[in-house]
Amino acid sequence: MSKGRLEAFTDGVIAILITIMVLDLHTPHGTTWHALRAELPVLLAYVLSFVYLGIYWNNHHHMLQAITRVSGAALWANLNLLFWLSLIPFVTAWMSENGFPTIPVAVYGIVLTAAATAFLILQGRLLHAEGEGSLLAAAVGADVKGRASLLVYCVGIGLTFANRWLGIAAYVAVALVWFIPDRRVERTLTAAHSGSGKAADHTRSQDD
Amino acid sequence: MSKGRLEAFTDGVIAILITIMVLDLHTPHGTTWHALRAELPVLLAYVLSFVYLGIYWNNHHHMLQAITRVSGAALWANLNLLFWLSLIPFVTAWMSENGFPTIPVAVYGIVLTAAATAFLILQGRLLHAEGEGSLLAAAVGADVKGRASLLVYCVGIGLTFANRWLGIAAYVAVALVWFIPDRRVERTLTAAHSGSGKAADHTRSQDD
Amino acid sequence: MSKGRLEAFTDGVIAILITIMVLDLHTPHGTTWHALRAELPVLLAYVLSFVYLGIYWNNHHHMLQAITRVSGAALWANLNLLFWLSLIPFVTAWMSENGFPTIPVAVYGIVLTAAATAFLILQGRLLHAEGEGSLLAAAVGADVKGRASLLVYCVGIGLTFANRWLGIAAYVAVALVWFIPDRRVERTLTAAHSGSGKAADHTRSQDD
Amino acid sequence: MSKGRLEAFTDGVIAILITIMVLDLHTPHGTTWHALRAELPVLLAYVLSFVYLGIYWNNHHHMLQAITRVSGAALWANLNLLFWLSLIPFVTAWMSENGFPTIPVAVYGIVLTAAATAFLILQGRLLHAEGEGSLLAAAVGADVKGRASLLVYCVGIGLTFANRWLGIAAYVAVALVWFIPDRRVERTLTAAHSGSGKAADHTRSQDD
Repeated sequence: MSKGRLEAFTDGVIAILITIMVLDLHTPHGTTWHALRAELPVLLAYVLSFVYLGIYWNNHHHMLQAITRVSGAALWANLNLLFWLSLIPFVTAWMSENGFPTIPVAVYGIVLTAAATAFLILQGRLLHAEGEGSLLAAAVGADVKGRASLLVYCVGIGLTFANRWLGIAAYVAVALVWFIPDRRVERTLTAAHSGSGKAADHTRSQDD
Repeated sequence: MSKGRLEAFTDGVIAILITIMVLDLHTPHGTTWHALRAELPVLLAYVLSFVYLGIYWNNHHHMLQAITRVSGAALWANLNLLFWLSLIPFVTAWMSENGFPTIPVAVYGIVLTAAATAFLILQGRLLHAEGEGSLLAAAVGADVKGRASLLVYCVGIGLTFANRWLGIAAYVAVALVWFIPDRRVERTLTAAHSGSGKAADHTRSQDD
Repeated sequence: MSKGRLEAFTDGVIAILITIMVLDLHTPHGTTWHALRAELPVLLAYVLSFVYLGIYWNNHHHMLQAITRVSGAALWANLNLLFWLSLIPFVTAWMSENGFPTIPVAVYGIVLTAAATAFLILQGRLLHAEGEGSLLAAAVGADVKGRASLLVYCVGIGLTFANRWLGIAAYVAVALVWFIPDRRVERTLTAAHSGSGKAADHTRSQDD
Repeated sequence: MSKGRLEAFTDGVIAILITIMVLDLHTPHGTTWHALRAELPVLLAYVLSFVYLGIYWNNHHHMLQAITRVSGAALWANLNLLFWLSLIPFVTAWMSENGFPTIPVAVYGIVLTAAATAFLILQGRLLHAEGEGSLLAAAVGADVKGRASLLVYCVGIGLTFANRWLGIAAYVAVALVWFIPDRRVERTLTAAHSGSGKAADHTRSQDD
């Protein structure tokens, strides 16, 4: 099956998720700087979730560039990822409207962990279909970053019960690590495309 | 007419429907596990409706892969399907915010039945345009699953008035049946594409 | 300029408009048939506006199939159309939540008139760019239906002040006329594509 | 990397932003012309923000037509732009629901300034990747309009504290300047495409 609609649907869902969080930015009570400042925690939580959804879109984009077709199982693995991402606006609102209390902060981390796991499952499905010597396998490699993120989330969730700001710090740290672009994937893709030259172009034009 | 925009529009509408249900996940009252647990019925109903919309997107995706063009009548049959799907967030909220009472559960089933019927009408329209010997006709076959689902919905709606959990059970059962991927369609499509080889590729590249 | 992104953006906006009206379908107060029946006027207004947005998407789809490129002025004419369409959820809610009173019904008609005018302006822009002997000029013809709709809207708005149901009747009548597919455009397009044969395919593949 | 998904994602986000502002158009209290007139400031602010988002979509559309591929850094520069645009519905509501008071009007200007800066950063990123002699460099030129807009925004924000209507006037003025289509970019693109003839078509068909 072609990957075009999977990309379009995923783009649509992430675009909507990233946008409807704005609906949770309630109009400040009053028209002073002070009133705006009261919305600051909500705004900062919005920034964090915006960056996370941006990272997922970015990584999804990169991953699907390296493959050529998707199986029915991959469609469901993708819907699973979208499900967990769809809970991000919900947990963002719960966490930020109440001043970042312990349990909502932990639940935020649980949703991030579930989304990261869903991404790894999707990646595994696609790797399985593409095979060992594939472009995707080369681009992903050992995926230290993906696995380490999962670990940091889990540590962060635990630390939240000691001090909730430690949990937030862990989530921000993972976002920063992913925010800094991973040149490796890009390089692999660029190398593959220029290396295989005309042959690759030919394949792509048939698949489009 | 080309099928590209029909796919894009349908993707857009389903992506939005699957996402705006999140807006009905109200921030829990309080910041305890208990407060989150009070939202559990709403969350579970969200999961069910998410899976249903995922199934429709999946099946729509598969069905349109097997065809090459759409008629004006198919556009309206598709809008009819989207109309019934658009009521899913509405009935999901009505059903789940009130603890799954009888009539809302029955109405949920009625909307599922109407959506399934709309899908069969769309399928019929496309089959009519494609013809008996078409790829779509081979992929759909007798469509036992589609027709049986309709029957189970109707039985489920009836049983709701005896015990509302029987209705829910019927809707979950149908979702599970569709959740397990239908290898048949995929196999037919794969066989057709590899079987007809270069000819098929040629046709597709002209239609894109 | 290529028409791809204009189509994608328009699809996106109409898909969202058609869907966010669902957010105005408030959960009924109570869980009885009676409570659902109280929502009936809102549901019927939703159906009317859904059909109108469906008609616009359909006609937009047809119109853009007949052209090959868009000018900067057409982008703005298209945004003008989208602006008026974007007011449909607003006037639908105002009209239906209050039991279809005179002034909101008239304002609904005014928005429909403005949207229809905006569509004619967009069509004029595209016709101007395509030229007299173009496929679009042949498909549109004298556009009796488009101009007559405008007239019926104006009459409907006037009649609303005598009896608001006459206004609603006028809007429903126009929707029905457009609902019945216009075979002429489709026939012109089909004839053109099959008539010009390989040449047309060749042109299209270069434009994609 | 191909630019297709970047365009699709941006189209999706802007389409949603332009549409969810409608959700802030609350149903008027009452069904009279007077009740509608009370919503007029909100409607006018909606028009201004609609036009601004339309301008950004338009300029984004033009800019991406002139390039052929995007880097990972450009994806983030684009997300940065989308972030600031996503705050427009928030500041529009804050500003218009309170009758355009000083501080919200200034904050509206700050968000416009940030979005314009983000656009220049994105443009800079793309220019850097395309190179000096590129089509984009020719189309953008010295970008007097982009830089002058930034200046007018800053002046407008300052003037708001003297008289808030001067701030609004500055924002409207910039919108009008961009609203009037910039024939230069279009001409450069048209010239480039017709000038380079078959070679350009060839390149494009490989990149699609």
